Amino acid sequence: MGGNKAVSYAGPGKVEVIDIDYPTFELRDGPGVNPANVGRKVNHGAILKVVATNICGSDQHMVRGRTTAPEGLVLGHEITGEVVETGPDVEFIKEGDLCSVPFNIACGRCQNCKEGKTGICLNVNPDRPGSAYGYVDMGGWVGGQAQYVLVPYADWNLLKFPDKDQAMEKIMDLTMLSDIFPTGYHGVFTAGVRTGSTVYIAGAGPVGLAAATAAQLLGASVVIVGDLNKERLAQARSFGCETVDVSEGDPKDQIEQILGVPEVDCGVDAVGFEAHGQGKESGEEKPATVLNTVMDVTKAGGQLGIPGLYVTGDPGAKDEAAKVGSLSIRIGLGWAKSHSFTTGQCPVMRYHRQLMNAILHDKVQIAKNVNATAIPIDQAPQGYKDFDSGVAKKFVLNPNDMIKVG
Amino acid sequence: MGGNKAVSYAGPGKVEVIDIDYPTFELRDGPGVNPANVGRKVNHGAILKVVATNICGSDQHMVRGRTTAPEGLVLGHEITGEVVETGPDVEFIKEGDLCSVPFNIACGRCQNCKEGKTGICLNVNPDRPGSAYGYVDMGGWVGGQAQYVLVPYADWNLLKFPDKDQAMEKIMDLTMLSDIFPTGYHGVFTAGVRTGSTVYIAGAGPVGLAAATAAQLLGASVVIVGDLNKERLAQARSFGCETVDVSEGDPKDQIEQILGVPEVDCGVDAVGFEAHGQGKESGEEKPATVLNTVMDVTKAGGQLGIPGLYVTGDPGAKDEAAKVGSLSIRIGLGWAKSHSFTTGQCPVMRYHRQLMNAILHDKVQIAKNVNATAIPIDQAPQGYKDFDSGVAKKFVLNPNDMIKVG
Amino acid sequence: MGGNKAVSYAGPGKVEVIDIDYPTFELRDGPGVNPANVGRKVNHGAILKVVATNICGSDQHMVRGRTTAPEGLVLGHEITGEVVETGPDVEFIKEGDLCSVPFNIACGRCQNCKEGKTGICLNVNPDRPGSAYGYVDMGGWVGGQAQYVLVPYADWNLLKFPDKDQAMEKIMDLTMLSDIFPTGYHGVFTAGVRTGSTVYIAGAGPVGLAAATAAQLLGASVVIVGDLNKERLAQARSFGCETVDVSEGDPKDQIEQILGVPEVDCGVDAVGFEAHGQGKESGEEKPATVLNTVMDVTKAGGQLGIPGLYVTGDPGAKDEAAKVGSLSIRIGLGWAKSHSFTTGQCPVMRYHRQLMNAILHDKVQIAKNVNATAIPIDQAPQGYKDFDSGVAKKFVLNPNDMIKVG
Amino acid sequence: MGGNKAVSYAGPGKVEVIDIDYPTFELRDGPGVNPANVGRKVNHGAILKVVATNICGSDQHMVRGRTTAPEGLVLGHEITGEVVETGPDVEFIKEGDLCSVPFNIACGRCQNCKEGKTGICLNVNPDRPGSAYGYVDMGGWVGGQAQYVLVPYADWNLLKFPDKDQAMEKIMDLTMLSDIFPTGYHGVFTAGVRTGSTVYIAGAGPVGLAAATAAQLLGASVVIVGDLNKERLAQARSFGCETVDVSEGDPKDQIEQILGVPEVDCGVDAVGFEAHGQGKESGEEKPATVLNTVMDVTKAGGQLGIPGLYVTGDPGAKDEAAKVGSLSIRIGLGWAKSHSFTTGQCPVMRYHRQLMNAILHDKVQIAKNVNATAIPIDQAPQGYKDFDSGVAKKFVLNPNDMIKVG
Repeated sequence: MGGNKAVSYAGPGKVEVIDIDYPTFELRDGPGVNPANVGRKVNHGAILKVVATNICGSDQHMVRGRTTAPEGLVLGHEITGEVVETGPDVEFIKEGDLCSVPFNIACGRCQNCKEGKTGICLNVNPDRPGSAYGYVDMGGWVGGQAQYVLVPYADWNLLKFPDKDQAMEKIMDLTMLSDIFPTGYHGVFTAGVRTGSTVYIAGAGPVGLAAATAAQLLGASVVIVGDLNKERLAQARSFGCETVDVSEGDPKDQIEQILGVPEVDCGVDAVGFEAHGQGKESGEEKPATVLNTVMDVTKAGGQLGIPGLYVTGDPGAKDEAAKVGSLSIRIGLGWAKSHSFTTGQCPVMRYHRQLMNAILHDKVQIAKNVNATAIPIDQAPQGYKDFDSGVAKKFVLNPNDMIKVG
Repeated sequence: MGGNKAVSYAGPGKVEVIDIDYPTFELRDGPGVNPANVGRKVNHGAILKVVATNICGSDQHMVRGRTTAPEGLVLGHEITGEVVETGPDVEFIKEGDLCSVPFNIACGRCQNCKEGKTGICLNVNPDRPGSAYGYVDMGGWVGGQAQYVLVPYADWNLLKFPDKDQAMEKIMDLTMLSDIFPTGYHGVFTAGVRTGSTVYIAGAGPVGLAAATAAQLLGASVVIVGDLNKERLAQARSFGCETVDVSEGDPKDQIEQILGVPEVDCGVDAVGFEAHGQGKESGEEKPATVLNTVMDVTKAGGQLGIPGLYVTGDPGAKDEAAKVGSLSIRIGLGWAKSHSFTTGQCPVMRYHRQLMNAILHDKVQIAKNVNATAIPIDQAPQGYKDFDSGVAKKFVLNPNDMIKVG
Repeated sequence: MGGNKAVSYAGPGKVEVIDIDYPTFELRDGPGVNPANVGRKVNHGAILKVVATNICGSDQHMVRGRTTAPEGLVLGHEITGEVVETGPDVEFIKEGDLCSVPFNIACGRCQNCKEGKTGICLNVNPDRPGSAYGYVDMGGWVGGQAQYVLVPYADWNLLKFPDKDQAMEKIMDLTMLSDIFPTGYHGVFTAGVRTGSTVYIAGAGPVGLAAATAAQLLGASVVIVGDLNKERLAQARSFGCETVDVSEGDPKDQIEQILGVPEVDCGVDAVGFEAHGQGKESGEEKPATVLNTVMDVTKAGGQLGIPGLYVTGDPGAKDEAAKVGSLSIRIGLGWAKSHSFTTGQCPVMRYHRQLMNAILHDKVQIAKNVNATAIPIDQAPQGYKDFDSGVAKKFVLNPNDMIKVG
Repeated sequence: MGGNKAVSYAGPGKVEVIDIDYPTFELRDGPGVNPANVGRKVNHGAILKVVATNICGSDQHMVRGRTTAPEGLVLGHEITGEVVETGPDVEFIKEGDLCSVPFNIACGRCQNCKEGKTGICLNVNPDRPGSAYGYVDMGGWVGGQAQYVLVPYADWNLLKFPDKDQAMEKIMDLTMLSDIFPTGYHGVFTAGVRTGSTVYIAGAGPVGLAAATAAQLLGASVVIVGDLNKERLAQARSFGCETVDVSEGDPKDQIEQILGVPEVDCGVDAVGFEAHGQGKESGEEKPATVLNTVMDVTKAGGQLGIPGLYVTGDPGAKDEAAKVGSLSIRIGLGWAKSHSFTTGQCPVMRYHRQLMNAILHDKVQIAKNVNATAIPIDQAPQGYKDFDSGVAKKFVLNPNDMIKVG
């Protein structure tokens, strides 16, 4: 049985396409499923035929073997799909609805959900607040890099596109609503970006580029993106960003050349814990470099948005402190500059509807900016490899051949 | 000449009462004065006869020799006084006005002041944004632990008390408006304290006690204060706080005993970089302990207010990283909990008027809560010593014998 | 059958206690039920045995015949009760839970609910956004002045008290969480009340007194309550408010006597459209008087919270404009003073949890302040009459004799 | 003497160009000067050589004779100029600086200024909070439709352009920073416009067009502008707005045709008290029509920004209530929809710097969107006439021939 192709983690450096069971309205045991979640009834869920599901930089942490993800874990938390079946408790979402799925799974009933903090829902992950599809230590909800996926609490979680045909035409943009576009937006929004701001975004991967796109949408006057990867920097320049090549040394100097002053109004860390050093140290992993740099280049009184992931356990880290997520942070500098900091998973639901409206009314071209590239699900292993090599592409899996590739 | 007694730093562990010049409307050279500020005209200033001026924990960093403060530096940034003379550019403040002086000196004309960020004024300190009276590397403005002091930009900086007689009756409360009451309030406010919150405040020194007082004023349901010092913990209990003795081990366990859960809604670090360890390590300096603990005991989605001082240079620190203000912070934990953090000097002006109104209408008893104790200026050296020994007192100098001591 | 005593509207000036059906998990036809809601399945609902259910001022609009409420309508939207049965879709609320019910019914799935705007839920009232139990034109959900009541979307709507015994001891306070305490809090919160504010609250009925209580909890320095009713003004004074007797003329003069200035920082209209005039006009209905007065006494730059109800249809109004809810508002004055205004139903869920915590930790005595008075359900008709006569009491019905009356 | 050409009000329907005194650092008596301000020293002021000064719709209220403005009043509150002299108390602004002048005069020292509420400064207008250049009942500060003008509190009020040559190239855009661009921005900002919003802006005059421009800058998905004037509607369409011709009837129907739903997320009243009716009533003045319409077309939970001017005295109004600024507002409708409202003068300083940055970095083309048209100061009378006739132009006076007219 099965009839549900899916992408799974097969050990460090390896992913493979396997055949898994078609979802039912129950969370069954399997690789990575929290025992406390086994057998959980999901009558409030919907089964989606997946239209688009993207490979995310945070998947790479698992695939590189930097986590405790078990082999066989089905990957994928960036999901857009068509509802093919709804559980008996679903009232408003209907079969046939084309929907975006926020990567954070949320119950819509706990105190945090009521406050819009859907990234730290209290009821979906027995280990700690917050959950996601297809991710280690996130409760065991089956990943969505598959043909079919179960979405719990469907009335709460799903964002229905108002017009299906229109949505299919913009599907390569809309697929970014499940994670990176809101995540990038959250980064710049919590960094205080508004009309006229100058912004430095560390990292030109898909989240960094999404953050840059969001900064433009928020009316920033200058958006500067920094990275070591020249191809990704070229991608940033393709839609009007200034860029800083951190392999050439301290971003502060390059920022001064661009702006006339060595500091920006708002700083964003879109890299996280697998950061490399700068200048001559750019070949080495330096997990605190990016955060410390962003402090250094953000003006006194500025806010820092930190969508880049920092973890509580990193078995592959170089020192004992880093292995438990403790890094040498220039807190004295931040304090002297009266900085404030926002960390954590983006609560996608806070932003996805308004970003959908911006996409549907042609106010933003997120797919073009992140260089969204659709590939068949069978090519997922190659997609992971290419993405890991640093190509300036955002890979979108097309598991049911519903995306027309131009 | 002179006729202006003042308290000055006389080398590690020593302060002395000296006679300094009576202020004029110019910033003259002297110990700690930034060369770029020498000769600066202060026609916008007012000369105050000091009624009350408090010894602050942050003064102790200098007195302990943990900074580069030069000998002879006149101390004191917590000032309340009567205007005895105004410069020619002063328009609204008048001779005879009894006023509170925010410890942060601000110009009232730069972009930051216009945004209410008076703790990082761009025009008063040639070295970097932000300034204060009588403090190392803060521009060289003469301290106010003296009989007379010059306050620049008087129309902007001074908060006039509406009724002088009424104010003199509550002077022991009102003197806390210059720093610790707003600073404590800022700590809990930026930690998100509101009606019904549970709060953990690390540190039962005057700022911690002021934060606890502010948390009560904001309607917190449970205020928990942690410290190693039993006398200060008793002081916290005296006005209704719960307490945690961190010498007995992890605050998390004690918090669970109080609340039934091991986490609070809001966390405040009112200690800063001279923190000690917990439990068995409580004899050692562990500069990141408090911040990491506050993260640990604050719930997912919580905010952390950090009024405790972290510095960019700490010559007395034990390791090289700490000497430049870099500490091993559990950023992975904070990120996993979606914490946000607010650091920096409190912008006193944002809060002092409303706190003054609360004092004048008997809504809060800050002097009692911090155990404010007036002493003659000649006893300042003893006051510094006693304060450093950990007594649960907030010393208020009375340089012109204007405070009636009961 | 039946076995469910309830209070129903029996024509202008009359309420009576009748026997109605025990609830099931379906919204059945009946007086005031919107046809589009008839037959609606409520598998997400819970049936509560009502512990306390209060008579509200807004019920009086119906009972006075000022609305189109049909005879037989079961009244009551202020409900606290114990869960005796849950529908098949309920996951987190359990039989035996003692809970507060927000008066606004909300689905927890629509865009407005996701934004915390539960007062204008899009899915519960076919006529327009927003709904409530036992209220005309609000969808037809059966009122809770009864022994048993159905609460839809129970996981979303219900606030469970953490400890049942403790809650029963404070039940007279906790019963105010279903409406007037959050409503009063919303009024002062949206009026910008914070530490040190001066506040004028028009209206000393239960909502006005709750607003005054909330203002104190928020740290206001002076809370002034205005009304025509001397008994209610005495009640306000009983817990530390200043008062203004508007029958004696313009509140502005009396405010000046209290504060020394004729204006307050924050203004609240806790009266609404059935307002009377001031001074010599205090015998007449003057529906815009209160709102215009509040503008007049609120300082430039102030905010106005308007929890007092204004309606779109008032058949009993004196002029044609007022019949459709159009009143002569001094918008020119408001504009000149840069006022901002917040209107509408309080979204109870935004506040009830934090207010519950304040009650449970003895930070506030709302029952005492509003003079909460428990009466048997059979005395409801007399309670309505007494309340309408202007007694300074908040009547709490005790339909299952579960409240121990001291 | 003199040598300062200026535009003055010469009675209903008339303006003329006269020669007035060159400014000094004192506010001297003259038409419209508040007696309490006569003789006021302005050592904190700067004298500007005016580069650009615009005719504003609010000037028209005076010129049409709808106010108590005295003949001889020098007009003009939209001022951009070069500093030619500074008073002795000016510290940061220097001779030669090219600056934008916020239309609201503010002291930078009072409680309101400290809170950023510069539209209601307490120290510049003896009559009431808030002031402006060249405006009736605003303190008597001489208008800036002149060759030279005095700007008080220059260090506080003036916004210096960072590069003079660059600024002169964009002067037609930058001149909009003194009033209409921030005012329009304030309207949409306080209406809650953000990424993806749909917006209805009533009024296609310069403020309405500026609001529409600001809405686009804030990322609105659809901006709809309504007016009776076809030429102005065409101007709105020229930069991508949708339009509603209110002479054709209820905007609600036309909005539904555009959006598919009859309501927008955010509503803006950029018309104010001289509004006309809709459809068949479009020939008549109906002062409350616009505000009531905006309520009608804004969704439940929406916010209304009201930059359009409402006055406390309108001698030319048709009924007694309107003469004192009291209008028949559908408050019942607003309340049922939980609307909130923000009124009052825009505090320009809150927005002008960020908008300047957006202009200087080519993120917005405000001059083109409002059809800015430079004319010599001698043509001011014709400019007033043309503007009053409803042309879709924003007239910019060029009193010192410093603007190069293409």
